[in-house]
Amino acid sequence: MKAAVMRNSQLVVDTVPDPIPGPGEVLVKTLACGICGSDLHALKHSHEFVQSAPQMGAAMDIERDVVMGHEFCAEVLDYGPETSRQLSVGSRVCSFPILLRDDAPVTIGYSNDIPGGYAEQMVLMEPLLLPVPNGLATESAALTEPMAVGLHAVEMARMTQDDIPLVIGCGPIGLAVINALKSKGIGPVVAADYSARRRKLAELLGADVIIDPAVTSPYSSWLELAQLSRQGEHLPLNPLTGQPELRPGVFFECVGIPGIIDQMMVGAERGCRFVIVGVCMQPDEIRPLMGISKELSLQFVLGYTPEEFAQTLHMIAEGEILTAPLITGSVGVSGVAQAFEDLESPEQHAKILVEPWRD
Amino acid sequence: MKAAVMRNSQLVVDTVPDPIPGPGEVLVKTLACGICGSDLHALKHSHEFVQSAPQMGAAMDIERDVVMGHEFCAEVLDYGPETSRQLSVGSRVCSFPILLRDDAPVTIGYSNDIPGGYAEQMVLMEPLLLPVPNGLATESAALTEPMAVGLHAVEMARMTQDDIPLVIGCGPIGLAVINALKSKGIGPVVAADYSARRRKLAELLGADVIIDPAVTSPYSSWLELAQLSRQGEHLPLNPLTGQPELRPGVFFECVGIPGIIDQMMVGAERGCRFVIVGVCMQPDEIRPLMGISKELSLQFVLGYTPEEFAQTLHMIAEGEILTAPLITGSVGVSGVAQAFEDLESPEQHAKILVEPWRD
Repeated sequence: MKAAVMRNSQLVVDTVPDPIPGPGEVLVKTLACGICGSDLHALKHSHEFVQSAPQMGAAMDIERDVVMGHEFCAEVLDYGPETSRQLSVGSRVCSFPILLRDDAPVTIGYSNDIPGGYAEQMVLMEPLLLPVPNGLATESAALTEPMAVGLHAVEMARMTQDDIPLVIGCGPIGLAVINALKSKGIGPVVAADYSARRRKLAELLGADVIIDPAVTSPYSSWLELAQLSRQGEHLPLNPLTGQPELRPGVFFECVGIPGIIDQMMVGAERGCRFVIVGVCMQPDEIRPLMGISKELSLQFVLGYTPEEFAQTLHMIAEGEILTAPLITGSVGVSGVAQAFEDLESPEQHAKILVEPWRD
Repeated sequence: MKAAVMRNSQLVVDTVPDPIPGPGEVLVKTLACGICGSDLHALKHSHEFVQSAPQMGAAMDIERDVVMGHEFCAEVLDYGPETSRQLSVGSRVCSFPILLRDDAPVTIGYSNDIPGGYAEQMVLMEPLLLPVPNGLATESAALTEPMAVGLHAVEMARMTQDDIPLVIGCGPIGLAVINALKSKGIGPVVAADYSARRRKLAELLGADVIIDPAVTSPYSSWLELAQLSRQGEHLPLNPLTGQPELRPGVFFECVGIPGIIDQMMVGAERGCRFVIVGVCMQPDEIRPLMGISKELSLQFVLGYTPEEFAQTLHMIAEGEILTAPLITGSVGVSGVAQAFEDLESPEQHAKILVEPWRD
């Protein structure tokens, strides 16, 4: 079958062996598969990525071929042995991107042995299949995976209605966080990005206050809101410090480059909680004293639970999580290499879907 | 009155003006005042300390004299105006080390305007006075402040009986954390320090597993325990990963030098929570990917609440928090400079008390 193959840190179109479903597995046709920021990392920073990938459940040998793609919607083609075949052939499905091999989990899209969604076909585990509700567009269903990352990040923050979130960075992950916050009725949501295109997307998803950090400090904007009660009244002064009380802050780091965490620590107020969702591949410098003096907390997060994944698909189908504005392009396997280049510019694209049946 | 004065990054004995209690204030005689690691920092890294100190409630001009000392037990000498005088003159007291000046809080011991406990007399706020219970040694009561830091750190960790704590560093702060953990019946407590003297102190305070990191990895030792249930049975394997389930880890950073947080992130298992109690004055490097891949969380903490401070004095009086083993020396004001030097060596001392009435 045809696939976009990562080989020697390049993306090339080639023919790879058709996957064969093993016991408990299902053969599917890839209908649409999103290109993830982690895939861009894996291609550009292969060695760094591979060094740390095993801890993230993505063990692969970068010297051998890899067919990436883990944000997919697919169609059931055939069943392997020992399957219950409850979904008819032709059903559209999503799946937590994992497969068991020799009793160990393998991440679909970061493996030398099984192909991901940048190929015409994949094998999935039957117990993990989630049928896509009728009426939900395939393209939207394919965004279940990245949107689940946002839901998980918000769940890990254990927020209350008093918390005021600040989302730093409005790439696909930041947008997923905004989606999850809005679906839970948490707000006002303050969102910041240097890109006008991304700020527009944040607005379409319902962010309440949208900041261009080149013009306004996101932290000052957050602080102005945090001084007001949910009813919009000024909060009382703390009798000991003489400073106004603040609503609690939950800051989402959705950029993933060195220096952002330190910048957030400088900008934060006492007691702010950070959720680190952006994946910074390089070492990073922080000033612990800044964290200590404000009693900040940092929660690093990764991925999602199977329950959150299923819930996300349901929320997309119900219109509680918006996906359509995020899809800014689609390509066949022959267009994957160019799409990776295009995604480097935030003004051009948010999410590009690979549709291997196209070419 | 006589005082050990910080002047030009030196400690000198000099005469300073007697403090005069203002409205709502009380004049006290300093009975005993512990030397804190932060005081060592303030002397050795004055400029760094002063730069960050305002955020920690310690605004002072390092070009002017400072009488440090915030870990004290004192005796009521006289009352200022507008006081209710409920404690008789001669009563022994502890106090949250804070004073209001122009409606703003000033930290006792880090101020150019009011003397701390390295002087014969201080002024305190009457509403903050806590009487020292009869029968409790003055020396033990003076340890209320550092022990409250440990209690606060443990409270901020919101631990359950399932959590297994690992205390990295057994200086006064690490020992305070061990004290708080044992007082709450949380354990087994794993504690690590390169110093034999400090390991001995950890043992005296009841730490269950005591590690010399030069010989054994604290993280491996913690991991062995975390694989066992509270009844000492091996926990079941996770069906998806094939790895054993673990009891949750709460790691206390009580060293405060660069590199420790990164080392803990490498040593930690998935989902571990860190409490950063050690005060690292320098910038520090972490690898966010390590935190992300394990979904670690870091809670920076500082100080204690007034309630925790009062509770600590009560717990010391009840024998729930041990203090006697920590007191390894005492000096008059003329011995403070030498005591600061002696405290640089962990083999020699844990806590030295300044008793200004001595000389």
